[in-house]
Amino acid sequence: MAIITLTTDFGEKDHFAGAIKGAIYSEQPEVKIVDISHSVSPFSIPEAAYIIQNAYSSFPKGTIHIIGIDSELNPENKHIAVKLDDHYFVCANNGIMSMICSEIAPEKIVEINIHDKVASSFPVLDIFVKAACHIARGGTLEVIGKVINNIKPIKNLIPFVNDEKSQIIGSIIYIDHYGNVVTNIRRKFFESVQKTRPFEISARNYKFKRIYERYSDIINFEIPEEKRNDEGRGMVVFNSSDYLEIAVYRSNMETVGSASSLMGLSMRDTITVNFLKV
Amino acid sequence: MAIITLTTDFGEKDHFAGAIKGAIYSEQPEVKIVDISHSVSPFSIPEAAYIIQNAYSSFPKGTIHIIGIDSELNPENKHIAVKLDDHYFVCANNGIMSMICSEIAPEKIVEINIHDKVASSFPVLDIFVKAACHIARGGTLEVIGKVINNIKPIKNLIPFVNDEKSQIIGSIIYIDHYGNVVTNIRRKFFESVQKTRPFEISARNYKFKRIYERYSDIINFEIPEEKRNDEGRGMVVFNSSDYLEIAVYRSNMETVGSASSLMGLSMRDTITVNFLKV
Amino acid sequence: MAIITLTTDFGEKDHFAGAIKGAIYSEQPEVKIVDISHSVSPFSIPEAAYIIQNAYSSFPKGTIHIIGIDSELNPENKHIAVKLDDHYFVCANNGIMSMICSEIAPEKIVEINIHDKVASSFPVLDIFVKAACHIARGGTLEVIGKVINNIKPIKNLIPFVNDEKSQIIGSIIYIDHYGNVVTNIRRKFFESVQKTRPFEISARNYKFKRIYERYSDIINFEIPEEKRNDEGRGMVVFNSSDYLEIAVYRSNMETVGSASSLMGLSMRDTITVNFLKV
Repeated sequence: MAIITLTTDFGEKDHFAGAIKGAIYSEQPEVKIVDISHSVSPFSIPEAAYIIQNAYSSFPKGTIHIIGIDSELNPENKHIAVKLDDHYFVCANNGIMSMICSEIAPEKIVEINIHDKVASSFPVLDIFVKAACHIARGGTLEVIGKVINNIKPIKNLIPFVNDEKSQIIGSIIYIDHYGNVVTNIRRKFFESVQKTRPFEISARNYKFKRIYERYSDIINFEIPEEKRNDEGRGMVVFNSSDYLEIAVYRSNMETVGSASSLMGLSMRDTITVNFLKV
Repeated sequence: MAIITLTTDFGEKDHFAGAIKGAIYSEQPEVKIVDISHSVSPFSIPEAAYIIQNAYSSFPKGTIHIIGIDSELNPENKHIAVKLDDHYFVCANNGIMSMICSEIAPEKIVEINIHDKVASSFPVLDIFVKAACHIARGGTLEVIGKVINNIKPIKNLIPFVNDEKSQIIGSIIYIDHYGNVVTNIRRKFFESVQKTRPFEISARNYKFKRIYERYSDIINFEIPEEKRNDEGRGMVVFNSSDYLEIAVYRSNMETVGSASSLMGLSMRDTITVNFLKV
Repeated sequence: MAIITLTTDFGEKDHFAGAIKGAIYSEQPEVKIVDISHSVSPFSIPEAAYIIQNAYSSFPKGTIHIIGIDSELNPENKHIAVKLDDHYFVCANNGIMSMICSEIAPEKIVEINIHDKVASSFPVLDIFVKAACHIARGGTLEVIGKVINNIKPIKNLIPFVNDEKSQIIGSIIYIDHYGNVVTNIRRKFFESVQKTRPFEISARNYKFKRIYERYSDIINFEIPEEKRNDEGRGMVVFNSSDYLEIAVYRSNMETVGSASSLMGLSMRDTITVNFLKV
């Protein structure tokens, strides 16, 4: 029984996500539908790329992922289906797939060409569902599109390293529900440049010299709980997806504040790592 | 295997929606439950009517739709089950069904009368789930209620046309997740009055002389992408549900703004279409 | 076919909840996954305790409930699995279970000890899913943990009664989607102290002398609908979970306001009931 996941910017209120689920069940009653997110910021391709990259691989091989962000068909925005890592992705060719594809080479990419057979003013409902159900039935990508070799890239995917390898200049690619700030600096990349040197991470005028493994590693458990004052402290971790993240311990956007709000950090802001001579 | 959908104003946080799903699975383990929306504005019957109208028909025939908005039983607010277009709807008789029923005549309406057998302080959980599971098992509406002939209407359902047929006065019935503003003027209605005449649409002091088919039809693709400046431009489209909609290209309520915020348009505001002499 | 429910503070946007569903289906394709809530306020143990208490019992016996709030493993925050009322709960030992356990004695509690076999920087994904799937396959708790006898308590669970039994001092433990304010005073407790005496409930400088059974009991149906003015009126009810709740009729946090916003009531505020001499 195939699984189809949904990642969209439709929000939680409108009928769009519900209508899509209805259309899938109408075509494929036996499929399982799983919501990954409908709360991607409107038209935010970087956010969608980050979310799908970090969700897809926990699903079984063969899962089909519909990504409904900025998917209106126009001369510059074609629809594609991608096979990669034994998963399938149906989306617009607008950069969403470039983050996953920078890590794992796609096995096959097709530009979907079933539009003449399916009238549509709501392509996720009409085209993406048709394509996903075709794949769920075991159909091949070539039946719904023509093979292409490249997908549209997005900017700021890879951090910059200077020639002396003394500095990484990264940027903020995602701000999560806790207001934690995710950079485009991945653990493996960081460690390959660092080579055990000490470092200083700068985010605006905040400086950090240590990267924690877990949020609660900031706590000194020898101090009695009632005397501790860790809530709201800034810190850097490699998050569970192994991205360098600037966090605030037990942050809450509506009460104590978060890394994003307390340090004034926004999407696309620069984060610098300086490695020190040893 | 029957499908039961849920459309409520319970929000995303509280236990209500979860409890309902548990109650359905306790009675009918084989049913499929699909969330349409739990983020209808509290007690907003027009919003719920719009959402369910535009979601229901993509589901398979025989689907049962629970609508949990303003559903507390009282002398003026009875519970009903409606069969229409081979779908079933279980809700309060508070106007929610009048939008769908204005397009398609219901096959059968019953006023639910199982309340003496089911104690309840949470009617969606107790009464609506019981009714929906009865229908899912193939039970008839007459077993759970007595047949009635009319449902409660809502206001502002149909736009006004003057005698000369030179003007439509519509109103705003829904504001979507992108802040786009949906009017009660449907494409078929508009075209039947227009008869190819040119027109001017007025929303506050904004005027529009063209209705687009797709949001990206506003773009001039001959201008290089980096020189374009379309984001945030106002426009009118027939949306994917064929309602006349005032939109802003790539709107985002939290950043560039939306039709609703930029033009100051709210629920129930008036939208006027003037047809010009030819 | 087992059911696994999810109650977390992951929010609606990030990949976390989606990744967990993928991991469950990867291990147990036949299980049913039900979202109870992903919108618990970040790290709010009292909210999570209230939500899971009021949702779990409508699910079939044997359901497994994953609660992902403040679940990072550290010396003071162990992972537990609890069997209670023929339901299973997998969570951190941080007080979440104390609300349910104060009503129904757990049949068995184990401290999960599979961490040496499962590397993890995201325990809900790695540890809780493993534990839940083990239980879903019919495995016993002893295989995944060592039996313990006590769970961590939370504060303010039980309201205070004075020696003369003339006063209950309760506190606010939950504010729902409608802004209604839920206290820790349960109906049975209230009635056992009251013994038919008249009373006055005080919340800040608001006083109430009556507890309604339903929200719409505040309406005088003899007054014509257009002359009524009940929207926005404060009232006290026993809510559908039988907690004493301070409500506002047809509240809406974004328009007319709510009990919380209009009366200035917040989490942990005190609510007093004074019983009068008869």
